[in-house]
Parts: sequence; structure tokens; C-alpha cells
Amino acid sequence: MVVRINGDRLNASLQELAGIGATPAGGVTRLAVSDEDREGRNQIREWFERAGLVVTIDDFGNMVGTRTGAVDLPPVIMASHCDTVIRGGKFDGVLGVVGALEVIRTLNDLGIATEKPLAVVNWTNEEGVRFEPAMQCSGVLAGRFTKDEVYNRTDRNGLRFEDELRRIGYLGDAACRPLPASGYLELHIEQGPVLEAEGIPVGIVSGIVGITWIDVTVTGQSDHAGPSPMHLRRDALAAAALIIAGVERIAKGRDEIAVATVGRLSLEPNIINTIPGKVTFSVDFRHPDPAVLEDQVGLFQQLIDRIAAERNVEIVADRFWTSEPTPFDPTIVSAISAAVDELGLPQCSLWSGAGHDAKYLADVCPSGMIFVRSQGGLSHCEAESSTAEDIEAGGNVLLLAALTLAGIVDKET
Amino acid sequence: MVVRINGDRLNASLQELAGIGATPAGGVTRLAVSDEDREGRNQIREWFERAGLVVTIDDFGNMVGTRTGAVDLPPVIMASHCDTVIRGGKFDGVLGVVGALEVIRTLNDLGIATEKPLAVVNWTNEEGVRFEPAMQCSGVLAGRFTKDEVYNRTDRNGLRFEDELRRIGYLGDAACRPLPASGYLELHIEQGPVLEAEGIPVGIVSGIVGITWIDVTVTGQSDHAGPSPMHLRRDALAAAALIIAGVERIAKGRDEIAVATVGRLSLEPNIINTIPGKVTFSVDFRHPDPAVLEDQVGLFQQLIDRIAAERNVEIVADRFWTSEPTPFDPTIVSAISAAVDELGLPQCSLWSGAGHDAKYLADVCPSGMIFVRSQGGLSHCEAESSTAEDIEAGGNVLLLAALTLAGIVDKET
Repeated sequence: MVVRINGDRLNASLQELAGIGATPAGGVTRLAVSDEDREGRNQIREWFERAGLVVTIDDFGNMVGTRTGAVDLPPVIMASHCDTVIRGGKFDGVLGVVGALEVIRTLNDLGIATEKPLAVVNWTNEEGVRFEPAMQCSGVLAGRFTKDEVYNRTDRNGLRFEDELRRIGYLGDAACRPLPASGYLELHIEQGPVLEAEGIPVGIVSGIVGITWIDVTVTGQSDHAGPSPMHLRRDALAAAALIIAGVERIAKGRDEIAVATVGRLSLEPNIINTIPGKVTFSVDFRHPDPAVLEDQVGLFQQLIDRIAAERNVEIVADRFWTSEPTPFDPTIVSAISAAVDELGLPQCSLWSGAGHDAKYLADVCPSGMIFVRSQGGLSHCEAESSTAEDIEAGGNVLLLAALTLAGIVDKET
Repeated sequence: MVVRINGDRLNASLQELAGIGATPAGGVTRLAVSDEDREGRNQIREWFERAGLVVTIDDFGNMVGTRTGAVDLPPVIMASHCDTVIRGGKFDGVLGVVGALEVIRTLNDLGIATEKPLAVVNWTNEEGVRFEPAMQCSGVLAGRFTKDEVYNRTDRNGLRFEDELRRIGYLGDAACRPLPASGYLELHIEQGPVLEAEGIPVGIVSGIVGITWIDVTVTGQSDHAGPSPMHLRRDALAAAALIIAGVERIAKGRDEIAVATVGRLSLEPNIINTIPGKVTFSVDFRHPDPAVLEDQVGLFQQLIDRIAAERNVEIVADRFWTSEPTPFDPTIVSAISAAVDELGLPQCSLWSGAGHDAKYLADVCPSGMIFVRSQGGLSHCEAESSTAEDIEAGGNVLLLAALTLAGIVDKET
């Protein structure tokens, strides 16, 4: 029997969900544990229940929809997240949740039962935009964070994660945690230009690069922009500008794979006629080789030491989060590769430059990811897009890989 | 007769006013036309009235307190402003208003009448922090702005100047405008390190340097920080960092007097794991020579053209405000110099690197300024400070210069 998902239904559900938190320029802002997140969750819960899934919510707000299997074994999880960045796109995250839902719908339509149970999971706060760092609500299940750490994170307004989760009605029970699992599959857009450059709709992900995040604070002396001679200034922004330029040079000077980004910056007092006295910004370094990552951070430390000395400013760097490189499980990668073959699609293996919940799931069960080609390589922006055909292809790879991992019970009807 | 102000009273009034909008670190935030500005104005009005001044409010919220003279001539104005920057200091602006009030109080105490009337003015929104650009409410009287322009300025929340002025109860009448005037004196802290370096308490200001303000917008492409190779990025912040470093080089490369500052910056989307797609920032160039100022702007234009081409980003520069250099009136400068001599203080002439309302008053009447030494040269920050002795000396220079310009009527008592 040829088993395939309903691509039209999958794309229609994605568009419908994109209406929640929709931005005027065609993107989505649905920050974790916000009112928009609640609305999106309510929609997903309704869909889960209509598809016959047993829905539970764990103590981190992770939503789990379970479909019974023929044998009493842990489920194969298909998962991703429904939160977005600010002015993000319609596909990042939600594709993996709605794609998994479409797999369930397809199995229901065709009356297919699986040996192992299947579970669809919507992880809370993958992006880490509102409550940093990213992927805490899968990471906590893998023992990467404590419950207290996650609960006590605050957003820019000082609101606590736990309080906000309770406020939106998605603070559930520890007994509902979706582990253990027999395997883990995450369908996601590529968020990069590789598949487009290769002309290939679906990619088989080898693993996730290492990432390290550093918060930098430059403290100089605020003063009036007019009467302070240049040579007496301790301008925190002028110092920060040299560091930002240096961060770029560090990545460019290494190899084609190394990347580094300053994405967030704020300054005080931030007015036109005053020398900035304090600048804070983030630095993000990524590489698949942990030794290279440490080397990049070492060069960064040399850079800020030099700027601090040259400019008589204080520079504090807090390397507050590091995620080591994670190669995926060969069994899962093989199941995905076989699905790609069965669909007659070309093979393309690649590393993920972005972190994903699969990173932490890999600690606790065999895990892997499927990438769908991103138009223009764009993501985390309103222009983020994948074609309906590529999304359908990605959904079918997820379907076939999940069936390989869960096993099909002889057809009932 | 030796006429001197009451230094203790002046310093006490300054400290009292500093309580309105006080910040925890010892500074003041009293943005123009804010609730704190209203509270400060109410205090000043009460003091004006208690000193027997006839108080009027003009159609830009400028507060005028007039003391009658013996002859029917335009008044000698003593003025400055009571708004501050965000986390500014206790002295910038308010010294010139409270100092002028102290002159009136002193004349009242001693029963001294002047030939010409004296007027104390508190100009609205000198700083231009909330409603840019600076000094609009003196500038509009000098024909530098239209009433509509000033009224329709909006703050970051989209609130209009006129609406906010009405809201705080200080939208007065055009008939109350404080011009014409026989002369103009503005007492102000230096906001720079020159007087401290020279060991001199009070400076005689030669004039105000030229200033130009430019708004710069860099537009690149927002994208995920992970999977975008460095060579394909169009990172708006990386481009902006090179421009900020270049702005500093332009000023340093000229002479000891040229200054340039990037004081305000914002970026989108401003999150840790996303390449900034858009950065906007301000550039402030200053110099006493208009030809040098134009040359600096020319070098800046070459800089942004080069960066835009090298990095495939769009850079738009809007030079939205320029204030040409303004030498002060010799009569006023002489009156100040004579006052300094009479007090036995050392003479020190200097240019003002900062703009002041005196700049626009110089268009319409003979004008000049008196500077009081700033501790550490600091201003526009919470640490801004001048000693009680220096403030008293500045107040006495203002008193004697004002009496020279207004003329003393033979003592009545």
C-alpha cells in the first residue's frame, strides 16, 4: 500500500495557525507563553482531540498528544514547537507539530495501527526569545536545567515563566512528561540556504552544531556629546562597535562553517546628544567542532581584553549558555534516509546551524531531524517561506520514517 | 554698595528642585512636558510669584516672570531651562533659571530697582530628548521653526507636543511671548572639562559651536543566526558598527576641537539568535568652523557610501538639523567680563560645545552666556556636579552683568 499524507490539508492547517499572532507583513509573532501562544495552543489542542489523540500537558506546558500502539512500549515522538521569534515566519517550529498531526490524521484516514504508540509533542518556548535561553522545556526533561531554574526565568518585564504559564492555563502535571520514548523525529524548515543551493526539497540532518552565547557589558562614562574632547571620552558604544566588528572577523577568519552574530544590543542613556555610558549586547558563536568553538571564544576574550585596555572601559563577558555539538542517532538517520529513497527524492545530508529541541532529546532517546528547503534560505523573519510541495514532501518523509520506527500492525480493515 | 547674591539660598533651591524627577543614583529625569516637568514648573511658578514676578506662559509653554523697570524698554532676559535628559544631572539648565530667580530675590532684598525691566524665562524643551530637535521653543521665537512644526512633533509613543503641553496645563498664549528683549544672559554649567583643567570657577562664553544631526538607517536582511554563512549575510548591525567606528575616526582625524558622537541606536528585531535586519542611529558632529563641519559631513557621506557598496546594505542618511556656529554679542561678553573682574575672579573665555537657547536668542537680541565649572567635566549624567562655591560665583557674575545691562535706579531706601 502506498501511504502518503494529505499535502493540501497540512498546508491549510499551517496557514490557519499562521493567523494567530499574524503580523501585517505576513509573518507571525507568537512569543512563548504569551496570549498568542495560548490561542495557538488552544487550536492545536482542538486539532489533537479531533484526531483522537489523548492530550496531556506536563509541568512545563509541553503538550503531548498520544495515539495508542499495539504493544506496551514507549512511543515514537514526532515533535517541534509553536512559539516564534518577534516578527518571525509561518513555518519555523509549527511545521513539525502540524506535520506530525497530519501523520496521525493520515493514519486515521487509512485505518493504520502502529506497533509502538505515536506521540505528537508541542514543546514550550523553543525559541528562548521571551525567556532565555532556548529549548528549556525539552532540556529540563533531559536534565539540562532544573525545574526551579526554568520556573524562575523572567522576561524583560520581570514576569516569571511559571507564573505566565499558569496565567495562560498551560501549567500541567509532572506525571504527563512525554518520556521515555522509543525514538524522536523532528520535522523543521532548514532556516539556511544549503538545500536551495543544491536544488533538493528535503534534507537529512547529521546533527546540530555547537553554540555558545555570551552577554557582554561595556561600561564607559556617559557625558554630553558637545564639550567632551574625543581623547578624553570613554564612549561605551564606540568600544562596542569595535568588538562587533571583531566578532565578525573572528568567524570569517576561521572557515566557511564558523558563524558569529551580535543580535541583541541596548545602550544607555540612548539619546542623541549624550555619549553612551553603557552598552550591553549578545554574542552567538557556532561550529560543529567543539575545539573550534572554544578557539573562537578564546579569540573573543583576547579581543575584549585589548579593547578594554585601549579605551579605558570595563568589559564584562558572561558566557551564560553553551550547547555542545550533537551528532544524531544512526538508526534514526537511516530511517529518514530510507524514507527519502522510498519517495524518490534526492539525498542530501547537512548539519543544523540552529539549535532544536532534538538536541536535548538526543540525550534521552535515539533522535533525528528532517529539514524542508527554505526559500532564499530565510527564517526568523516575516519573509520566511517554503513551497507547499516541499512541505508535503517533508511531511511524507516524516510519515514514512515514523512508520519505520513505530512499525505497522497488519491492516485492520 | 557691594551687591551679592545669597549663595546658600541659591544652592538650597537647586537641591529642592532636584527632588522633582530625582533618580536613585542622585540624578534627575525631568523630560520636557512630562508629569515631572509639570511638577517642576509648578514649583518655579510658586517661587516666581513669591518673588513678586508677574508670571505669564506663552503658546510654547515658555514661562516668563517679569520685574518692572523704571523705563518703558524691553527687558533684559535671564533664562535657561528646567527639562533634563534621561538620567541627567541636578544643574544642567535649572541653574540658569534658579540663578536668575536668585538675582531677583537679591534685588528685592536690597530694594534695588533697575532702569530696564528684568525677565526670568524657563524655556520649554531645551534638551530635545522627548521631542527632537533641541531648543525648539526658543528657536520658534527666532523664526527658526514654525508653530505647526513645533506643535506637531511627536515623542516615541506618538504623542504630540501641543497635546502634551495642554495636558500638563502649560499651553499659554501667543501674547505672552517674552520678546523683544534688550539683552539676554544665560547662566549654565560648562558641561566640559576646560574650566576644571584651567582651575577657574566661571567662564565667559565666546559663542556656540556649529552642530549637525544626522539620522542613519541601515537596512540589510534579518535571518537566523545559525545557518546563514558569513559571506552571504547582510547584517545591518555589523555594517553599523563599521560606520560608528568610522564616525569616531573622522572627528579624531581632524583637530582637537572636532567631536562626533553616536548617542542613540536601535535595531530590529533585537534578539540574540537573529541577524539584525535594520539598525537606526544618530550622528552628531560639532565644530566652531562651518567649513570644517561641512567637511566632516562630506567624509561621513563617503564612509556610508563605501560601507553600503561593500556590504550590500542600504544606508539612508537624513541630515535633519544643523545649527551654524554663533559668536556672542561683544556688549554682552564685555558686561560678563567686567562682572568677572569686579568679583576678582580669573578670566577664561571658551566656546560652548553644546547648543543652548542663547543660540537662538542671539538672532533677536544681544546675547551671551556664563559657564560654571563642572566637576570632572561631566554633564548629561547623574554624576553631573558643580561646587556650591562655583555656583555662587556664577550667580554673582549673572547678577552683576544683569545690573550692567539693565542699569540701576538710584537706591530707593
